[in-house]
Amino acid sequence: MRSAHVGQEVTLCGWIQYQRQGLFLVLRDFQGLTQIIIPQDEAHSHVKKVLYDAPVESVVRVTGTVTSRPPGQKNPRMPTGDIEVKVKTAEVLNSCKKLPFEIKDFIKKSEALRMQYRYLDLRSFQMQHNLRLRSQMVMKMREYLCNLHGFVDVETPTLFKRTPGGAKEFVVPSREPGKFYCLPQSPQQFKQLLMIGGLDRYFQVARCYRDEGSKPDRQPEFTQIDIEMSFVDQAGIQRLIEGLLQYSWPNERGPITTPFPSMSYAEALAEYGTDKPDTRFGMKIIDVSDVFRSVEIGFVQNAVNKPQGTVKAICIPQGAVNFEALKESAKSQFNQEVLHLILKPDESLKSPLSKFLSEEQQSELIQALKVQADDVVLLAAGEHEKCLVLGNMRLESANLLELRGLVLRDPTAFHFLWVVDFPLFLHKEENPAELESAHHPFTAPHPSDTSLLYSEPAKIRSQHYDLVLNGSEIGGGSIRIHNAEQQRFVLETVLKEDPELLSHLLEALKCGAPPHGGIALGLDRLICLVAGAPSIRDVIAFPKSFKGRDLMSNAPDYITPEELEPYHIQVACNRFFVSISCFLKIPFSLHMPI
Amino acid sequence: MRSAHVGQEVTLCGWIQYQRQGLFLVLRDFQGLTQIIIPQDEAHSHVKKVLYDAPVESVVRVTGTVTSRPPGQKNPRMPTGDIEVKVKTAEVLNSCKKLPFEIKDFIKKSEALRMQYRYLDLRSFQMQHNLRLRSQMVMKMREYLCNLHGFVDVETPTLFKRTPGGAKEFVVPSREPGKFYCLPQSPQQFKQLLMIGGLDRYFQVARCYRDEGSKPDRQPEFTQIDIEMSFVDQAGIQRLIEGLLQYSWPNERGPITTPFPSMSYAEALAEYGTDKPDTRFGMKIIDVSDVFRSVEIGFVQNAVNKPQGTVKAICIPQGAVNFEALKESAKSQFNQEVLHLILKPDESLKSPLSKFLSEEQQSELIQALKVQADDVVLLAAGEHEKCLVLGNMRLESANLLELRGLVLRDPTAFHFLWVVDFPLFLHKEENPAELESAHHPFTAPHPSDTSLLYSEPAKIRSQHYDLVLNGSEIGGGSIRIHNAEQQRFVLETVLKEDPELLSHLLEALKCGAPPHGGIALGLDRLICLVAGAPSIRDVIAFPKSFKGRDLMSNAPDYITPEELEPYHIQVACNRFFVSISCFLKIPFSLHMPI
Repeated sequence: MRSAHVGQEVTLCGWIQYQRQGLFLVLRDFQGLTQIIIPQDEAHSHVKKVLYDAPVESVVRVTGTVTSRPPGQKNPRMPTGDIEVKVKTAEVLNSCKKLPFEIKDFIKKSEALRMQYRYLDLRSFQMQHNLRLRSQMVMKMREYLCNLHGFVDVETPTLFKRTPGGAKEFVVPSREPGKFYCLPQSPQQFKQLLMIGGLDRYFQVARCYRDEGSKPDRQPEFTQIDIEMSFVDQAGIQRLIEGLLQYSWPNERGPITTPFPSMSYAEALAEYGTDKPDTRFGMKIIDVSDVFRSVEIGFVQNAVNKPQGTVKAICIPQGAVNFEALKESAKSQFNQEVLHLILKPDESLKSPLSKFLSEEQQSELIQALKVQADDVVLLAAGEHEKCLVLGNMRLESANLLELRGLVLRDPTAFHFLWVVDFPLFLHKEENPAELESAHHPFTAPHPSDTSLLYSEPAKIRSQHYDLVLNGSEIGGGSIRIHNAEQQRFVLETVLKEDPELLSHLLEALKCGAPPHGGIALGLDRLICLVAGAPSIRDVIAFPKSFKGRDLMSNAPDYITPEELEPYHIQVACNRFFVSISCFLKIPFSLHMPI
Repeated sequence: MRSAHVGQEVTLCGWIQYQRQGLFLVLRDFQGLTQIIIPQDEAHSHVKKVLYDAPVESVVRVTGTVTSRPPGQKNPRMPTGDIEVKVKTAEVLNSCKKLPFEIKDFIKKSEALRMQYRYLDLRSFQMQHNLRLRSQMVMKMREYLCNLHGFVDVETPTLFKRTPGGAKEFVVPSREPGKFYCLPQSPQQFKQLLMIGGLDRYFQVARCYRDEGSKPDRQPEFTQIDIEMSFVDQAGIQRLIEGLLQYSWPNERGPITTPFPSMSYAEALAEYGTDKPDTRFGMKIIDVSDVFRSVEIGFVQNAVNKPQGTVKAICIPQGAVNFEALKESAKSQFNQEVLHLILKPDESLKSPLSKFLSEEQQSELIQALKVQADDVVLLAAGEHEKCLVLGNMRLESANLLELRGLVLRDPTAFHFLWVVDFPLFLHKEENPAELESAHHPFTAPHPSDTSLLYSEPAKIRSQHYDLVLNGSEIGGGSIRIHNAEQQRFVLETVLKEDPELLSHLLEALKCGAPPHGGIALGLDRLICLVAGAPSIRDVIAFPKSFKGRDLMSNAPDYITPEELEPYHIQVACNRFFVSISCFLKIPFSLHMPI
């Protein structure tokens, strides 16, 4: 309601945000706040009593006339600040009998409390805004995919079969003894089968499940914008997603520029120490191995002379102020010592290393890193991966600098980045002689590297691509293997998985599978970044706690053995008891002493 | 591609539908079929060989020139029947190595086979059409709700807590010993909590779960268009849904007229013997108690004199021809005898009853039922419910008459119907002294009947409404209880449920819950009817068999005890074994003879 409505008779339904001395109240509905003037004359004493007695957050319906606020009482910060409604009739539709906290303070309360009373938390401006933003953005994405680009929205099952290595899949007991469904982590197999089925452009806003136990800012169920296309290459998917984001991007967040920049995985690791670089600020990692090659420090020499050994550095502008905090954080958070250099205002270097560095080496270093007075340089020496600590220190330093008031990362900036050319396989952490998929076993090898698949699979790059926004991974996808023999080779020979579990997919690939590829965007994370929310829980209506609990309803909960009976399962006995009962399998005819 | 494209150079990717003698082939892509002319000259011998050797259903890419088909060779039944493509280059992208059946014959194969090779079945014209129709119709619904009516698309969790009486909910073990999530049958609680949370217009295309064991034409997971509004009444929801269906209705199915007619539950039962009447044809049930009140047949008198006793009848036009089949079906399918009358061409009645009926009674009957020569009248006497058999016989007769070529139900007609004024509670079948919710415990009483809630709950009508299309229930909803005390009374006093399981909802109702109501449309069933498909499995990409199995991947499947360990469950021992281990709890220090 605005000035244009002055003189109109209106009916409003909403919640009493507050009420003052029976004179006026503020009514909140889904469109915002409206000031309501309570009549003071005798004829309307009933209306006055009704509104005076109604507790805050009661639901009321009022009718009245829109009038201009008297001069001097207009509120320019309120969209309805020019008007008020003079009430004639009022009715309490539901009285609020209980209120643990006032709605406007809710966001300040502990998160556990917000979760417990989620239905009240949802009344907050912020939650209303976030959920409506999410709905609108998803709607725009659907328009783009479905109406503009001919994608077909196909719903795929969530009661499915366990995937090989699907250790993070929830299980769902069926009525067939011993048989279980699994809740899949993504519709990966289905989207590929749809391509084989000739649904050439598929998308779905797909519910996915991942059981990771307790992890902060992860949810056991989450949503992805799931996309797959036939007869497409990596660039085709990338351009589609850029268009998708541009089309669905909320106006109030400003335009985004396409195409997004692209960076290889190797480059990202070398320059940012991570595969999801936050490119909103500099402080890149610089390779200073050449400077240190002739420096006579034992461990530095050791490092530089190893096959993948390097010395790397980042320069933190004005880092001297936070220097102790930085060192502390490297130690406590990353359990790693980093070497440091501080350039003092008199241009001299302060460092445990400085005595080992010639003046020439010192100035080479200062030049390479563009060090200025009061900057701190952090150094790490060792094998390639060891330098990843500098990636973490880079982010940590940015946090510390921003705490001091420096703006390194423009909060209104959105830096998208494609990270490409990932390795297809990684050495298993627990057994480096074995390989595992860097992403999943359906990822196609990079066309330039295909021949390596059969000779040196550890060296092959993939056709996987990640989409990164402001240092968060918001999507990932790949061109898939469409050749049955290649897929079997990867599963059986490289990954040593039992191909039997995927026999349906291997069969399908033999029946005229088109070349295809796709991507999935993590919707919760994307909306969280767009909304500027502190956590993905702030863009989900009913999130679980980091332990996977619904604090409002108290799920998961105990259920009776009788309720489990149709599913042929029971809660496991403790170990001792299990061992006795296993034991009993042998002496079956045992005479029991009772 | 059409005549307008003649002369253009095109690249096509698709599947070889068939190929004839190296002369031409038909290429199938998502848009349809295109005739490809294989070049016969020496310069293109490679192209010819490639296409000649490629098995049917191989995926190929061809480039060539669109040309007009020679006169006399145009195919008016094919959208691309005016043109053909003269190929210059061809490449096999993936050769089809295996094909259990030709795609065009697929629909004729056994359903089990179609399910096993679903990815091939999806290539059929019919499945492509159904899935694309589904996607488009849902998209239109979203536009209507989200863009035109300000609804917010909110995703609600599927890992939730067991609902009271939720015997059909799948359970999902969590990592907390003995604790389980449940997969809810609908977002009912969440949609109400959203209303309490001030999201005044909610919708979701919601995945729901129902474990009913084996049931034909039901799916363990299914989709509903889930809607809830605050400050709305029954008529408000009904008008919204009518607009929704009108807006999303596919053009090729012709327009639908709104508002939909409405019928009370009592009327539906009385006239159609079912709460989901197929109003596409007549043959209504007629109460002929008055005619029989003075007829001296013992069991008829018995029936008429009972409190709810009636004699009812339907008249089946030209039913005499199928008479034996009808009688047989009443017996075998519904396990019930029905009395009959046949009006012979000479206007005399042939019936075991005729000797008991006076001439006047006979003609009263003929008039009441508008019986004509060769019509059959079926009669049922007894209590109200017993007459439901006539509802079944009505449908069965329609089937039999249509088998004979009569068109009773226009296959292009769509008859929507609201069924309203349901009872709020029903007597439990297993214990008629107890009441259960006719729909769910959140349904509000009918405003005219509210006072009965506390005195005679069995007699109260509800604010529930069902939407019926051509005799199938495609949706249902209600205005909900928004008063905490009333909700508690229903749960605790009427239904004898433990309100503890719903304490979060009862608490929420105290915090200023707005009046609200909603509806859910069964999407699978709706699309099935719109598409004219024989089964809901034909409008679902990857349906389960009626036993709940995925015949393609063979889910559900066995998983190892190790995989169950994190969830603290085990497959239940057989009964004998369980009893031994329970037994063991007592003689804990038992000396084991090994």
